[in-house]
Amino acid sequence: KRPREYGIRFGVMPTGPLNAITDVPGVRVGQVTLQQGQNVRTGVTVILPHDGNLFQQKVPAAIYIGNGFGKLTGYSQVEELGTLETPIVLTNTLNVPVAADAVIDHTLAQPGNAQVQSLNPVVGETNDGFLNDIRGRHVSKQHVLDALRTARTGPVEEGNVGAGTGTVCFGFKGGIGTASRKLPASLGGYTVGVLVQTNFGGVLQIGGVPVGVELGKYSYREKLDGSCMMVVQTDAPLDARNLKRLAKRAFMGLAQTGGIASNGSGDYVIAVSTAYRIPHETSSNFDEMKLLRNDATSPLFMAAIEATEEAIINSLFMARTLSGHQGHRVEALPVDKVVELLRKAGQIK
Amino acid sequence: KRPREYGIRFGVMPTGPLNAITDVPGVRVGQVTLQQGQNVRTGVTVILPHDGNLFQQKVPAAIYIGNGFGKLTGYSQVEELGTLETPIVLTNTLNVPVAADAVIDHTLAQPGNAQVQSLNPVVGETNDGFLNDIRGRHVSKQHVLDALRTARTGPVEEGNVGAGTGTVCFGFKGGIGTASRKLPASLGGYTVGVLVQTNFGGVLQIGGVPVGVELGKYSYREKLDGSCMMVVQTDAPLDARNLKRLAKRAFMGLAQTGGIASNGSGDYVIAVSTAYRIPHETSSNFDEMKLLRNDATSPLFMAAIEATEEAIINSLFMARTLSGHQGHRVEALPVDKVVELLRKAGQIK
Amino acid sequence: KRPREYGIRFGVMPTGPLNAITDVPGVRVGQVTLQQGQNVRTGVTVILPHDGNLFQQKVPAAIYIGNGFGKLTGYSQVEELGTLETPIVLTNTLNVPVAADAVIDHTLAQPGNAQVQSLNPVVGETNDGFLNDIRGRHVSKQHVLDALRTARTGPVEEGNVGAGTGTVCFGFKGGIGTASRKLPASLGGYTVGVLVQTNFGGVLQIGGVPVGVELGKYSYREKLDGSCMMVVQTDAPLDARNLKRLAKRAFMGLAQTGGIASNGSGDYVIAVSTAYRIPHETSSNFDEMKLLRNDATSPLFMAAIEATEEAIINSLFMARTLSGHQGHRVEALPVDKVVELLRKAGQIK
Amino acid sequence: KRPREYGIRFGVMPTGPLNAITDVPGVRVGQVTLQQGQNVRTGVTVILPHDGNLFQQKVPAAIYIGNGFGKLTGYSQVEELGTLETPIVLTNTLNVPVAADAVIDHTLAQPGNAQVQSLNPVVGETNDGFLNDIRGRHVSKQHVLDALRTARTGPVEEGNVGAGTGTVCFGFKGGIGTASRKLPASLGGYTVGVLVQTNFGGVLQIGGVPVGVELGKYSYREKLDGSCMMVVQTDAPLDARNLKRLAKRAFMGLAQTGGIASNGSGDYVIAVSTAYRIPHETSSNFDEMKLLRNDATSPLFMAAIEATEEAIINSLFMARTLSGHQGHRVEALPVDKVVELLRKAGQIK
Repeated sequence: KRPREYGIRFGVMPTGPLNAITDVPGVRVGQVTLQQGQNVRTGVTVILPHDGNLFQQKVPAAIYIGNGFGKLTGYSQVEELGTLETPIVLTNTLNVPVAADAVIDHTLAQPGNAQVQSLNPVVGETNDGFLNDIRGRHVSKQHVLDALRTARTGPVEEGNVGAGTGTVCFGFKGGIGTASRKLPASLGGYTVGVLVQTNFGGVLQIGGVPVGVELGKYSYREKLDGSCMMVVQTDAPLDARNLKRLAKRAFMGLAQTGGIASNGSGDYVIAVSTAYRIPHETSSNFDEMKLLRNDATSPLFMAAIEATEEAIINSLFMARTLSGHQGHRVEALPVDKVVELLRKAGQIK
Repeated sequence: KRPREYGIRFGVMPTGPLNAITDVPGVRVGQVTLQQGQNVRTGVTVILPHDGNLFQQKVPAAIYIGNGFGKLTGYSQVEELGTLETPIVLTNTLNVPVAADAVIDHTLAQPGNAQVQSLNPVVGETNDGFLNDIRGRHVSKQHVLDALRTARTGPVEEGNVGAGTGTVCFGFKGGIGTASRKLPASLGGYTVGVLVQTNFGGVLQIGGVPVGVELGKYSYREKLDGSCMMVVQTDAPLDARNLKRLAKRAFMGLAQTGGIASNGSGDYVIAVSTAYRIPHETSSNFDEMKLLRNDATSPLFMAAIEATEEAIINSLFMARTLSGHQGHRVEALPVDKVVELLRKAGQIK
Repeated sequence: KRPREYGIRFGVMPTGPLNAITDVPGVRVGQVTLQQGQNVRTGVTVILPHDGNLFQQKVPAAIYIGNGFGKLTGYSQVEELGTLETPIVLTNTLNVPVAADAVIDHTLAQPGNAQVQSLNPVVGETNDGFLNDIRGRHVSKQHVLDALRTARTGPVEEGNVGAGTGTVCFGFKGGIGTASRKLPASLGGYTVGVLVQTNFGGVLQIGGVPVGVELGKYSYREKLDGSCMMVVQTDAPLDARNLKRLAKRAFMGLAQTGGIASNGSGDYVIAVSTAYRIPHETSSNFDEMKLLRNDATSPLFMAAIEATEEAIINSLFMARTLSGHQGHRVEALPVDKVVELLRKAGQIK
Repeated sequence: KRPREYGIRFGVMPTGPLNAITDVPGVRVGQVTLQQGQNVRTGVTVILPHDGNLFQQKVPAAIYIGNGFGKLTGYSQVEELGTLETPIVLTNTLNVPVAADAVIDHTLAQPGNAQVQSLNPVVGETNDGFLNDIRGRHVSKQHVLDALRTARTGPVEEGNVGAGTGTVCFGFKGGIGTASRKLPASLGGYTVGVLVQTNFGGVLQIGGVPVGVELGKYSYREKLDGSCMMVVQTDAPLDARNLKRLAKRAFMGLAQTGGIASNGSGDYVIAVSTAYRIPHETSSNFDEMKLLRNDATSPLFMAAIEATEEAIINSLFMARTLSGHQGHRVEALPVDKVVELLRKAGQIK
């Protein structure tokens, strides 16, 4: 069960109907999970901002780097041009190249792309090497293509799935999590959706309750390291500059969970607006846009913070105890104890 | 009383003896408070990393910009050269130039600086225009020079003092706050000290308890905007690159209090290492340094997050209800209610 | 005489009618020159993107930092919000605070600004301390206000004038220079105007001819240090992201003259589009814009490179030999010799 | 023949003995050239800062992005940690993932790396799709491993070789070029070596002479687009911050050749110091370093500008006319004409 089903609340804003990144109209998610034998615990998660040809119909985008000890590929072109032209792929650290190559396959093969000679795959990762035989690089191009092919709107599976299959978060089993916020009409009515791949450390806090301390599992006591990939989608009409600001707020949401962005952490946020598209080719020299003013962005910032916090906690609630590579075993968050702690703290009423 | 005196704890690390930025050996703080008549509610706070000639004996430094809607001066030289060569001054938005001019006065006049023709004042600000007649620009050069002259080690006054005299935070009276963390010897034994000037909004959280929601005062409900200046000092031997990373963690501490870095926020962190000095002139072409490795920085990151969170909450606990400009009045945080809330939540035992 | 009058050409694009920053419609320049007694050789140059209330009608803007050893104030807000809300002021290093304070005076006093409590002055500088008694800080607020009051469209005075009164460039007398490029209608017909305050070193090259080497005056042989402020204005509809890219090309123009951006250099480019305005307040939550596409920016980039190169060389041709502080004397570029060298090289035909 | 053999000089500093990146002691270069049938015109160039285990003995490094329309992978970790832990690989745009995967193979297989689970390949590229069937992605992992295996010190082949096999520069055949500068002992005696993969446009200038204009081939007249990868190696003891500044000067060298960094350009500089190493693991928490002071960096900056300019021109002189994909043909720079032009301009004496 997700935290909300226990009565846990994160922040003050309402969620979208699914409380998922797919509450942003048109956004699709695809996941392939690899659990094979004793050692393979990894996978792929893809996020597509729209169901058209992303290369021909690019979306405004930005990437914020919280802590850059990571191998995300595709940063500089997004930063320079302010657009994303491929699906976003998440996987394990050592399979980033294979996944990027698959994105090239995918894009070159799409109808309408016969002349494409240059494209910028954006692939993020966290390191699942504790539970997964990461050196074996078990993700293949086909796995990525399968995830792309099967991506769909609607509910998103969370926990030990896709790129979150083998991840560890705050010393417990992490994984994929998602959440969303929907602004009231008076603030524009926009949706902000977040999907995370959680694999990091710190001092876990849930709804403000210092669960990590209570459970005796936190960074100061033991070495809890790792990374977090965060993907933010919104239908608010933001340009790349304001998307980067929005992306930074997702990192603030990570801070809200007690994450510390330790030295070894690769914390990246990829933020995309689905509100308009930038055609690859057009007869016009202009992009005409109706962009949200700086003044009107704060509610979206708040939404990104809340949704990221909740997505991270969702990943922990939905993950299951897992054994893997070299006999390593990571326990799931003891949800019953956590719920009890939150009840005592008045955070569940 | 400070939160700790009520039994409130922030994070898991021990504080330094004063729980103040001045726990970092050699660091001095000076403050001048201007409360005159009905309309003047402002002041100056200065932080000096050491008691020598800062221009001749520069310190490694970095500035992280959380949200750049602010008027901090001196950014680019610190970014380019990795050093700070003047005291840090905090004041109100429209007095930044006067304060910078005072820093020039101060530096040109120091013994040994007779040949100095170029220097980089670093002055930060928040906007106290709700309680203070900010357009009157009541801070003079003499006020800044007085703050510099009277700066000292030891306890630091908090609340409605210095640059925090007229600030507002989470809808309550904000001000100056400070805190520190001391790493155990096994992690290097370093101290991280933080001083903040709090003037921002969001959804106030104290020790994880959503106090803002409970008190019915938060950003989604009313417009709570503003800024936060954060100064971090440490005796850990970090270079500018790792100081910038440390500075970013102070911003994560702000996130922990429920700050959202709204569009109108000027959130800056100035981080300094006091562990070594970079001479302005020397016969050598080299700086010899023994720097903490990347691998060893995570405990400092955690310390910066915790100390910033606590410094912000300290500023709220220590501030007092204040009336000022145009009859505006800002209530202090209702500490008794807050303590009661935290007691119920089990955060005070 | 300007280089073009000798037949020297820079690049391949045509200039605007005045070959000045004021070729961009609406752009005004004001200058106050201080030459007093033996020691005062400094001044103020201001650039205003339009003749309205800049605070109420902001312009899209970006600042690129080539080498950040300088004291420019106002960087972070432009970076965060993508707008400029004040005139641009250039002066000497130690008068930046006074100039910023004058901009505050100016803005607070403007009709319609009675409620303004926060504004972001952008003031750049170079160090004229060799010819000028810079420690005397001879620029007053009144000088800045005078420059603002007298700013006008039309031809711009170059050489030992305004903020360039006491500057030194490539070992010769530098100063203020300006130039422009006008794109053909097929490329949009836009104008790019540049104004520079030249005070830097390297190996002077004019129209490709290594004049510095020929004249025996260059950085490797003697210490030629310093800074360059560059201001770019264009009527092309660019947003802040593309303005930052444009600004970077001005820095490439500096490289074309043989500038090396030495360690001690404060090289900044402030780029502004005059094509549209961002109102400070409006009933709409949206900015509607018709922006030039990324694809269409390259000719503007080229224009910025060429115009910056030419503006720098213009400053050298138009400056005059000057004596000043402590009896220091800086010779003007020996224009006759230079023309002769360029003639021999076939660069003047 | 290289330009120097014709008597052409670039700047004022002396070259190293080979006038190549390999003048920096220990630096090795490996190249694999693919010219197969009518359509395959591509390859791989690798640069290794030292001959040890780069993962275990990392080198200080920085990456400067001139214009980020490119697919370089590995940026953020270098930016965050200030180190490079793999060889640098250059190839074509669509083979970046395969090359990165090969670097993973290479590193995982190295003796001493049996426990490595995370590594950051740095792979740069330019687009050779005019002469090469780039969509065929003809570079295999084996090609990269071969380049790594055969890398050596000593002279470096230039022109249509390795990653420069199919590139086009200023409308002429580009390729790989290299050059170096050696500072006199009085300035530290350091060497700066540069290697470039040239594939960009603008208005070609050689030794200041506007060759592009004279030959009627330049960006304003026709569309000359593309990218430039630049690798800088030095034995000067710089940290990541000053390496980034050095890298920026290489981009100024590109500007000196008339490059304009057009919208479509992916211009990246990877700068490395070979002066000291950062061990991956060590019993100490400290890195002890004797770093060159900021004050002493300017001669290195100048060296990077000059060597980059010369490396680019070397690539043009050494490249040969080539036909390839779809019958496209790119002429070599007409060296005889160019030499004649430079002779007339007095640039060859």
